[in-house]
Amino acid sequence: MLRRILLTAAVAAVALVALVALQVSAMHHELPKGYRSWAHVKSMVITDKSHGLYGFHNVYANPAALEGLRAGKGFAKGSEFVVSFYEVGTEGPMITQGKKIMDAYMKKDAAAKQTGGWWFNAFGPDAKPLGVDVVKGCYECHADGAKGTDLVFSKFIE
Amino acid sequence: MLRRILLTAAVAAVALVALVALQVSAMHHELPKGYRSWAHVKSMVITDKSHGLYGFHNVYANPAALEGLRAGKGFAKGSEFVVSFYEVGTEGPMITQGKKIMDAYMKKDAAAKQTGGWWFNAFGPDAKPLGVDVVKGCYECHADGAKGTDLVFSKFIE
Repeated sequence: MLRRILLTAAVAAVALVALVALQVSAMHHELPKGYRSWAHVKSMVITDKSHGLYGFHNVYANPAALEGLRAGKGFAKGSEFVVSFYEVGTEGPMITQGKKIMDAYMKKDAAAKQTGGWWFNAFGPDAKPLGVDVVKGCYECHADGAKGTDLVFSKFIE
Repeated sequence: MLRRILLTAAVAAVALVALVALQVSAMHHELPKGYRSWAHVKSMVITDKSHGLYGFHNVYANPAALEGLRAGKGFAKGSEFVVSFYEVGTEGPMITQGKKIMDAYMKKDAAAKQTGGWWFNAFGPDAKPLGVDVVKGCYECHADGAKGTDLVFSKFIE
């Protein structure tokens, strides 16, 4: 009987932790409204469809992140970036933005201990999370390639 | 003597008109400060160096122009666009923004009668006017290709 009670309590505790984690995760992992009016940091294009980051990329920064980028002295809590990925289109001589593929998102928060002090996520064209493994799919590459700039790859282009 | 006075007065009048015209022109033809914080409308790339519009293009709209673009009902006086042209660079699999080539500029003003109600200009990387013929080099192509959208080629991409 004691064993059953302990087991039930343990299951309940795990479920509670999972629920809280999900809520915290959801809180930090919503695509922010209005990011299309944020400052544009830069754009770039990867035309190779087999590349993991294929697409026409536009990088946006909220005011806190922009200040960090321009000052080059790190990022304040609440700094946010969105990288919008579009299909690579062509119209005559032009390489153009096609349909939206996804929005990649990062937000500075010391609470995101597992991912270097940034929450990461990726959202489909419907703004719903794509369910990527943010440790393997985002953090590890940022930690490896952009460790000298607080995990931020993009430089602001004047 | 009367002839000399009249001639002098005429020359002075012409000089005055020219001076006023230059000042009006300069007033409308300065690259606006802060346009890099305006909303980003879209980007596109023309890689062919022989093309007249070669470059990595980023299009920015001030708040008035953005409202016009999104509502699709024309542009209020004071609407402004800047298209920043950069060299087309490559880094590994990426097509990137290279050095700034120029900034093309248009501003809505009914007083710009010769160019369809928009002031046009183009500025070098030093923000000084390039001295282009804005009628032949800007207006005529916009009037021909974008007459249904008040001479504005770009559409806002969400």
